[in-house]
Amino acid sequence: MTEVHTYRPTLEQLAYTFGGNREPVLRINPGDVLRVYTEDCFGGAVRGVDDLPTQVCTFPYLNPVSGPFHVNGAEPGDTLALHFASITPARDWAVSSTFPHFGALTSTSHTATLQAPLEERVWKYDVDVAAGVVRYHARKSDFTVELPLDPMHGTVGVAPGAGESRMTIVPDAHGGNMDSPQLRAGVTVYFGVNVDGALFALGDGHCRQGAGEVTGVAVEAAMNTVVVVDLIKGVSTPWPRFESDTELMSTGSARPLEDAFRISQHDLVGWVGDLTGLEQLDAYQLVGQAGQAPVGNVCDPNYTMVASVEKAYLPRISAYQGTHDRLRGIGREHGRE
Amino acid sequence: MTEVHTYRPTLEQLAYTFGGNREPVLRINPGDVLRVYTEDCFGGAVRGVDDLPTQVCTFPYLNPVSGPFHVNGAEPGDTLALHFASITPARDWAVSSTFPHFGALTSTSHTATLQAPLEERVWKYDVDVAAGVVRYHARKSDFTVELPLDPMHGTVGVAPGAGESRMTIVPDAHGGNMDSPQLRAGVTVYFGVNVDGALFALGDGHCRQGAGEVTGVAVEAAMNTVVVVDLIKGVSTPWPRFESDTELMSTGSARPLEDAFRISQHDLVGWVGDLTGLEQLDAYQLVGQAGQAPVGNVCDPNYTMVASVEKAYLPRISAYQGTHDRLRGIGREHGRE
Amino acid sequence: MTEVHTYRPTLEQLAYTFGGNREPVLRINPGDVLRVYTEDCFGGAVRGVDDLPTQVCTFPYLNPVSGPFHVNGAEPGDTLALHFASITPARDWAVSSTFPHFGALTSTSHTATLQAPLEERVWKYDVDVAAGVVRYHARKSDFTVELPLDPMHGTVGVAPGAGESRMTIVPDAHGGNMDSPQLRAGVTVYFGVNVDGALFALGDGHCRQGAGEVTGVAVEAAMNTVVVVDLIKGVSTPWPRFESDTELMSTGSARPLEDAFRISQHDLVGWVGDLTGLEQLDAYQLVGQAGQAPVGNVCDPNYTMVASVEKAYLPRISAYQGTHDRLRGIGREHGRE
Amino acid sequence: MTEVHTYRPTLEQLAYTFGGNREPVLRINPGDVLRVYTEDCFGGAVRGVDDLPTQVCTFPYLNPVSGPFHVNGAEPGDTLALHFASITPARDWAVSSTFPHFGALTSTSHTATLQAPLEERVWKYDVDVAAGVVRYHARKSDFTVELPLDPMHGTVGVAPGAGESRMTIVPDAHGGNMDSPQLRAGVTVYFGVNVDGALFALGDGHCRQGAGEVTGVAVEAAMNTVVVVDLIKGVSTPWPRFESDTELMSTGSARPLEDAFRISQHDLVGWVGDLTGLEQLDAYQLVGQAGQAPVGNVCDPNYTMVASVEKAYLPRISAYQGTHDRLRGIGREHGRE
Repeated sequence: MTEVHTYRPTLEQLAYTFGGNREPVLRINPGDVLRVYTEDCFGGAVRGVDDLPTQVCTFPYLNPVSGPFHVNGAEPGDTLALHFASITPARDWAVSSTFPHFGALTSTSHTATLQAPLEERVWKYDVDVAAGVVRYHARKSDFTVELPLDPMHGTVGVAPGAGESRMTIVPDAHGGNMDSPQLRAGVTVYFGVNVDGALFALGDGHCRQGAGEVTGVAVEAAMNTVVVVDLIKGVSTPWPRFESDTELMSTGSARPLEDAFRISQHDLVGWVGDLTGLEQLDAYQLVGQAGQAPVGNVCDPNYTMVASVEKAYLPRISAYQGTHDRLRGIGREHGRE
Repeated sequence: MTEVHTYRPTLEQLAYTFGGNREPVLRINPGDVLRVYTEDCFGGAVRGVDDLPTQVCTFPYLNPVSGPFHVNGAEPGDTLALHFASITPARDWAVSSTFPHFGALTSTSHTATLQAPLEERVWKYDVDVAAGVVRYHARKSDFTVELPLDPMHGTVGVAPGAGESRMTIVPDAHGGNMDSPQLRAGVTVYFGVNVDGALFALGDGHCRQGAGEVTGVAVEAAMNTVVVVDLIKGVSTPWPRFESDTELMSTGSARPLEDAFRISQHDLVGWVGDLTGLEQLDAYQLVGQAGQAPVGNVCDPNYTMVASVEKAYLPRISAYQGTHDRLRGIGREHGRE
Repeated sequence: MTEVHTYRPTLEQLAYTFGGNREPVLRINPGDVLRVYTEDCFGGAVRGVDDLPTQVCTFPYLNPVSGPFHVNGAEPGDTLALHFASITPARDWAVSSTFPHFGALTSTSHTATLQAPLEERVWKYDVDVAAGVVRYHARKSDFTVELPLDPMHGTVGVAPGAGESRMTIVPDAHGGNMDSPQLRAGVTVYFGVNVDGALFALGDGHCRQGAGEVTGVAVEAAMNTVVVVDLIKGVSTPWPRFESDTELMSTGSARPLEDAFRISQHDLVGWVGDLTGLEQLDAYQLVGQAGQAPVGNVCDPNYTMVASVEKAYLPRISAYQGTHDRLRGIGREHGRE
Repeated sequence: MTEVHTYRPTLEQLAYTFGGNREPVLRINPGDVLRVYTEDCFGGAVRGVDDLPTQVCTFPYLNPVSGPFHVNGAEPGDTLALHFASITPARDWAVSSTFPHFGALTSTSHTATLQAPLEERVWKYDVDVAAGVVRYHARKSDFTVELPLDPMHGTVGVAPGAGESRMTIVPDAHGGNMDSPQLRAGVTVYFGVNVDGALFALGDGHCRQGAGEVTGVAVEAAMNTVVVVDLIKGVSTPWPRFESDTELMSTGSARPLEDAFRISQHDLVGWVGDLTGLEQLDAYQLVGQAGQAPVGNVCDPNYTMVASVEKAYLPRISAYQGTHDRLRGIGREHGRE
């Protein structure tokens, strides 16, 4: 029997790390549904073009997540499956910005130069869920254009292993701030479980983002999201994987960007080999000709790449014992907010 | 009046550098059409699974191109436009391989490790142009699958500037071995001209390739290709750009991969700003939310990234004085082999 | 009045993270001396050439540190100074090894390839503290040679900020596994304090290491070390800095390696500017011609570079209010084990 | 019988590529001595603080070299040895500068950002060869300091293989703009020969430079240099190597910086293995503990790392059949300008 949980944190209840001391905010059984509200990456503090992030936000209180959620029975060596049944902007506006020394086309704290930062500037978007669009407004002219609404979560993950605790801004093997547009409704995400209960959390909704999140900040929005939670016992997953109705996707988060690419493609070659029985170099060859490599982010502390292949090229395979199809069914039943 | 040139090199006439002493093989006027045959990256020497590249090919005689072609009137500071009207596999088979210490999931001459190379192995593909598919055959099992035919040229470029001559295996600001699937029929490619006559050349046809060309070798094929040639006088282009009916694309070729990403996104931000009149940060914001970042190659001496944006988001713009639409028209008339 | 503390952990008392829940093992006042025993990176489990690390050690119980030590009065925004009065190998032998998919000349978990790992092999070194040498013995021949003993700590750091906890194998802004030979006796290390008490810890003694720790493992040894502890109130330090009698040194830990270089050189330019009053570009120019860039490690989760400049080129400067000279004096008095 | 050649180019005779069409300026027999004048990287056009490089120099006429010199009998597969007997500043002043979007602490054409470049500024140094110092003068204050004179050539190389021609600003397997302080008087440099006659050239003298040439420009000076030329027939050298009286050094030039590190360390491990007979992993272990990794440049189109080991740790070895010692002898006899 599917239980449906609802969770809406106050500002004080938002979390800023994966791992650490924080008590779970809910305990959930595999198979349950979670309806969760997530605040935007600014904690809702940037509400207009005059709210500069560095003035209204305080480091490290950025990129808050809702959670952590304890999954009953989850143990190290298992895989947590989160199926995103729906992701819906909670407001009729969203914001983006430049942020000093953050983004792909600026020097940063790590790609350190002696140059002054770019100007800090905020853009406010109109969000029309019914029409399925967001509207961009230039700040220095009257140029305006509609872009497709394509809601996603930038940040989803579990507690890291080895006693680590990581800021929510960081993507790594535990997930986190992967900032990948592939993480949209209809997709199941798989994480290796590192601690009892898995302790997953999510946030950082984007109405849409470009590949690489080149400005460092997407079209940021609070979200109402429905997640179906499941557990695959005794099956490990080294790096987060995504599954849609049509694609298998592996991720890698690292620097330099080619290492994120290598991790994701390496994982996909192994996954395809496991599912199809193809010998390693045969799987490498197939992924090499059939695979895609969507760019997640090129701005966070680790960059994220996704490696994907269409299931159509892998006849008769079933990943994680058919978990995606099963959760898709539950999601269709319970998914709409 | 459009003149149609035909060029089919003998093996001895193939070229292995962009730039250098080689005399032009043809002189072409802007507006002319070129029907050209290009050999595959192995010079046609790998014809079956027993033809190991290191045994049948000799460095540096790899990745041959047809050319160079002299474009009358082209001078440094101009832009050369090449519109690919059609790219058609010339044979009913194609080949791929691993190659020792080359590819994204192996150590290489530059990412140097003490490990032995992966096994060198060849895969032969069936090519069915009418059906629009290639067929993959595993080597260590009887797995087989059809993949969509999606012909492209891995290598297209002009003579570099500053007196340089580069191996055809290298992509850089002059183009070269960009190995990007976006360079398919229907696309116009723009290059900055560095020397009188531009001296363009092309080769390295792929029936298809995965993003990143992760195995280092695509589905390699000889091609019959139709190119419409044009010249935009007095307009410079710092890095190769592509234009399709629906997208503007900038490229960058560099290491590490994030620099290829930065170059391509930086160029696209500037290009969008020039076309729309958007102020710099406004253009950055728009590209940041609307842009895509297809991966070209992550295996060549420089890696290649493409930055793209849909023209639909840039109302009423016209790039390079409408060159693409004009050449598209000529290509439709003269394009089929 | 200088108090001298002595701390020798049992195996069960060793720590494997910077930050986290662990209670401090000692509380120390600024100005006190700490005599501390540190185990080697294998927790002492590799005692001969037949003890392969992957067989006798269990991830994540690698690279243990002694600590954390609470420094009374330390608060975020302060700087912790640790002066290494002496670092003395505790045994007459030390070990090194290859480790599967770890090191600079092998593919790794992040620079992921499909190649098999290098053979796992252990080398045992003789350590002669009196003679000041270690002796290398080849495993596959009778070649043997003495190398200078040059003891250092690979791992020293404080608790990270922002609620993070990091494995001891990771170097970052909190210090950690910097694996830099410059961290030898006679040197003062400065860390920004992120949490009350600073919570520093240290371990991973090396009898010596090559620049970059190219094999991934140095000449690993348990150490008896004497540290003088001090606190500079109200002065922040963004990245760990070292000071010797003759040099100022900044560090950076990041990937790719050029970002570690940039961070360290950027910090040194700022530090030199602060100390000398030189305008920014004037300081950049001076560091650019006078500076050195010793390589720490090119094998850990982040790579570490050191940027250094001789104090002789910066007449009349005094860093951190003369802390180094003061601690040097205390160290000379209390330093020898 | 040692022949002594003298060559002093006019400005019009300076070369700007390695490889290409240029006729050799001299033909030299192995064993001969070359006394050569080299202009500074600005072609002598920057003579004071008001001569901004972008105003007085024209791309690509930067970083000129003297040459190419044809070595009689040199063929692909041989090794060219150049022993630097002396390198002497030709003037009593030298210059350095910032250069827009060039250097390690600025965004560049490849690490492309939207930020404005740093201010372009020139520093003029006094050069006192007799005292062995250069004097730095701050531009924005009256700070001044003497630094040791340590003359070197930033750029030395041979014609590349595979029909390539490269700008002199680029370091790669053919040498070129390695910008490594290790290339000073007393050192022998070994290059693999790629074309008949080797066609070596040199320039870009530095009175000194910091590790990494972090500002992008060293203390630039015209030089009077004495080189002893030799040829080792039938012995190939994949990447440039240096030998001093006390050290063996391998180089690597690539991006990202860790690949330059890997290439250089990989070459040194192989070289040490060849000279000592050590098995591969035994050589890796020895280099890993005994090796150094001086940074050449972190600003050029490829970054350069040096891997070095003291000969004292490799008893009884003799590299390249004792070439260094032999040329050292000739150099002592003929070396002073």
